[in-house]
Amino acid sequence: MLRTAADRHGLLVISEVMDLTQIPLLTEYADILQVGARNMQNFNLLRELGKQPKPVLLKRGIAASIEELLLSAEYILTGGNYNVILCERGIRTFETYTQNTLDLSAIPVIKKLSHLPIVADPSHGTGRRDFVAPMARAAIAAGADGLLVEIHPDPDRALSDGAQSMRPDQFEELMRQLHAIALAVGRTL
Amino acid sequence: MLRTAADRHGLLVISEVMDLTQIPLLTEYADILQVGARNMQNFNLLRELGKQPKPVLLKRGIAASIEELLLSAEYILTGGNYNVILCERGIRTFETYTQNTLDLSAIPVIKKLSHLPIVADPSHGTGRRDFVAPMARAAIAAGADGLLVEIHPDPDRALSDGAQSMRPDQFEELMRQLHAIALAVGRTL
Amino acid sequence: MLRTAADRHGLLVISEVMDLTQIPLLTEYADILQVGARNMQNFNLLRELGKQPKPVLLKRGIAASIEELLLSAEYILTGGNYNVILCERGIRTFETYTQNTLDLSAIPVIKKLSHLPIVADPSHGTGRRDFVAPMARAAIAAGADGLLVEIHPDPDRALSDGAQSMRPDQFEELMRQLHAIALAVGRTL
Amino acid sequence: MLRTAADRHGLLVISEVMDLTQIPLLTEYADILQVGARNMQNFNLLRELGKQPKPVLLKRGIAASIEELLLSAEYILTGGNYNVILCERGIRTFETYTQNTLDLSAIPVIKKLSHLPIVADPSHGTGRRDFVAPMARAAIAAGADGLLVEIHPDPDRALSDGAQSMRPDQFEELMRQLHAIALAVGRTL
Repeated sequence: MLRTAADRHGLLVISEVMDLTQIPLLTEYADILQVGARNMQNFNLLRELGKQPKPVLLKRGIAASIEELLLSAEYILTGGNYNVILCERGIRTFETYTQNTLDLSAIPVIKKLSHLPIVADPSHGTGRRDFVAPMARAAIAAGADGLLVEIHPDPDRALSDGAQSMRPDQFEELMRQLHAIALAVGRTL
Repeated sequence: MLRTAADRHGLLVISEVMDLTQIPLLTEYADILQVGARNMQNFNLLRELGKQPKPVLLKRGIAASIEELLLSAEYILTGGNYNVILCERGIRTFETYTQNTLDLSAIPVIKKLSHLPIVADPSHGTGRRDFVAPMARAAIAAGADGLLVEIHPDPDRALSDGAQSMRPDQFEELMRQLHAIALAVGRTL
Repeated sequence: MLRTAADRHGLLVISEVMDLTQIPLLTEYADILQVGARNMQNFNLLRELGKQPKPVLLKRGIAASIEELLLSAEYILTGGNYNVILCERGIRTFETYTQNTLDLSAIPVIKKLSHLPIVADPSHGTGRRDFVAPMARAAIAAGADGLLVEIHPDPDRALSDGAQSMRPDQFEELMRQLHAIALAVGRTL
Repeated sequence: MLRTAADRHGLLVISEVMDLTQIPLLTEYADILQVGARNMQNFNLLRELGKQPKPVLLKRGIAASIEELLLSAEYILTGGNYNVILCERGIRTFETYTQNTLDLSAIPVIKKLSHLPIVADPSHGTGRRDFVAPMARAAIAAGADGLLVEIHPDPDRALSDGAQSMRPDQFEELMRQLHAIALAVGRTL
């Protein structure tokens, strides 16, 4: 169903794979397979993902160091699948005002240590709509290769993650700013 | 001596006040009095700083929540000194690749909760020269009102904090990017 | 093989279940199924473990709050399996001298909030042989219902976890002390 | 006043020194000078305390590593005052059910790295009366040389820290258990 909708609108489908048994189906229908933060060290899953051809989006665990994220990526690369995209989505600290602490310094650190692309997820990283746009801008300014941003036409009625979802008009305004920031740091989006 | 040098070049002097007894002298010679992260909850010191007229730069403690930073600022404001500048300079987390974890989400959170200006210190926040420029760009993109960046004409021979100090030419390049980012988010530096 | 050795010596077999697909085999041969820290929030796995009859040892994740540990246990209890044993095995903090920080206050907190038994794992909690015995004593004194302690006849040649394994003679001495402490707090081992 | 009361009942007075200027007075009247967690890295204060003869109780900062605590003690020792008592009173982690996370593994670690006595403060370490007794027992079992426990004849009406203060009858019961635990680990209180 997602596949059909995506084809109609020229979008890509990213699906989270939570289990070894889901790989065959998802490899057939999704464009990118996502490994959630809780599965970042599910090494059996990572090994299997190294043996299939679709790109893998690997999210950093909430208590994982940058080094551990890179080591987890190695499990996929070792299998022969070099299309791994890393994702910073916040770590757990003593700060409770935000849901997690988005560790944007992970972006330049990973750029230095690895050739893999790194994206940021300010929606999960902050957990609150008001802070998604500024952190999205910050991530691009820090050198992120992309963003995961949750959008919903009517976030207050969303079935899940409504509190951290932007409205479409907020997103459009954000995209304009991101283009200008990317230009300022010598990149294009 | 710093005073004379500053006057000659039209600069401001920011001096750290580490002790109640230093306030009279520093109030006379410095333009801004800085309270270091270790003194963020030195309430006697904060109270006295509320009774003198010079602006105070208050740094967030490495284990202090955003709320605690704002409460510490209240000690100064209560004394009648409303010129308080807050500073995010990194918190302590399990991540050890960077010296601290610069919590840039503190910037939009403080913008929402308070009217006080907030600056970021990517030099102490990362502890490594390579990561200062990307985090400085990110801080401005997140809405920071200013930056503390350490510069040294020859950082490898600096007496202190050399590892996190930029060279002047790196700084010039950074300033160009920051201007463009500020413009992109509708501000000027 | 473990099953045969255990039967010969009157021991119980605890086996870690890392995957849904391992449940049928392990339910047949093991006495207790262990869920590792990395799988504490693998909800599909927890749900399945609720539908089989063997006791489950559920380890706290390194970034999991006490409340989240109790909520994870609910997934098993909801399925009808009430034999759940909780395990404190250390959380991740900024302290790096020990591998993790064994949060012994979780023991009295869980005793207050739940009726489930709680054991401690000072071997993984500290990661170093020297600190296992004192933390084992502390756990019993704090009210733990049991301990997981790694022992090896020749730890320096162990295939895994040697650095945190005790020698059998160290273990015997520890057991004598634990009996006395249990008596002191009005319990028996 | 505290001095007179202490002399009448044969008790020792521990007073917190929050400032350089308080040292002369406190050195005269108190038996032990306490440095609070927030002042653990107030190096000017530590240096001065090294030059006076009264014992110093040095509390670990909530974001301080064990190594940093030992380095802070060096500032006092260097001045010639060798009567330094270290105190574990909890560190800040993501766990919010307890006020801090009492890191009891600091006790055996410090025993290994240093000859200085180490005590624990389960009252501040947990922040809740119910958990003080179990953590006090655990601290002694882990090898602590002493305890700081807050007691109040009527804790619910205490002017400060009532929530973490024990009643005298709870304390008596605790003392009986502590004696037995100390005996079990080959020590006396």
